[in-house]
Amino acid sequence: MSTLDVAGRRFSLSRAVAADLPELVALLADDVLGRERETTASEPYRRAFARIDADEDQLLLAVRDEHARLVATMQLMLLTSLSRAGATRLQIEAVRVAASVRGAGLGSALFVWAHDWGRDRGATLAQLTTDSSRAQAQRFYERLGYRASHVGFKLLL
Amino acid sequence: MSTLDVAGRRFSLSRAVAADLPELVALLADDVLGRERETTASEPYRRAFARIDADEDQLLLAVRDEHARLVATMQLMLLTSLSRAGATRLQIEAVRVAASVRGAGLGSALFVWAHDWGRDRGATLAQLTTDSSRAQAQRFYERLGYRASHVGFKLLL
Repeated sequence: MSTLDVAGRRFSLSRAVAADLPELVALLADDVLGRERETTASEPYRRAFARIDADEDQLLLAVRDEHARLVATMQLMLLTSLSRAGATRLQIEAVRVAASVRGAGLGSALFVWAHDWGRDRGATLAQLTTDSSRAQAQRFYERLGYRASHVGFKLLL
Repeated sequence: MSTLDVAGRRFSLSRAVAADLPELVALLADDVLGRERETTASEPYRRAFARIDADEDQLLLAVRDEHARLVATMQLMLLTSLSRAGATRLQIEAVRVAASVRGAGLGSALFVWAHDWGRDRGATLAQLTTDSSRAQAQRFYERLGYRASHVGFKLLL
């Protein structure tokens, strides 16, 4: 679908397919917060993937290195609300970059790519939340130009 | 569609229709932050409304009092992501309660109703963000049981 050249390495970006699921889930779980949240059962992920994949306003990205190893993922959603004059928003969820490729600029390059993807589809605002304990992630988003203007609330139903 | 009895008054909740748009936009604009963001042009709102209305995983609520005055609105979205074991999330956006009915418990009753709506459709987590400057809104969400666990970032594209 697309390639990104970062620090002398080439990464491929593609819309995730069902066969990517085991690696995607492993990447989500390989995280200080994720390891408590993810399960080893595949069925809930298959159902979730089918819903995401059926929606043209969503893109679940599988990012692979030159050895075809899955090294990053993010989920992009185009959301519309009446507020802000009916703006289309690019919501970014479930961002993960494998520890093995961190620090080389792949994360920043992916966000630039994601913002372009959203802009091309009419989005005028990007939004995301990150856990308050992820201090490094917060500095990363501020360097990208994001403003920490909101408080993110969650409630288990 | 549904009624809520709050403090001796009866409110009706229905899926917004195009004819509700002028009142909905006026309610969004009647707000310390909203008044700078909304426009008087109707076309962007009509386009946004058509996109929201076409999506079965969304509900834009129009809440009216016994005199059929629009007194509250919120937008509910069911979002699926792979993380948290493929959980379905209830995202709540663009919440407004008219000043004339604030403090009577309508806001809380609407959130209880919204959580039930999400639960009935498989949502296991509710999420929302609020501007850091809205101290009263933050206390309101905490009273409802929400945890301010995340930082919400936004970037104009």
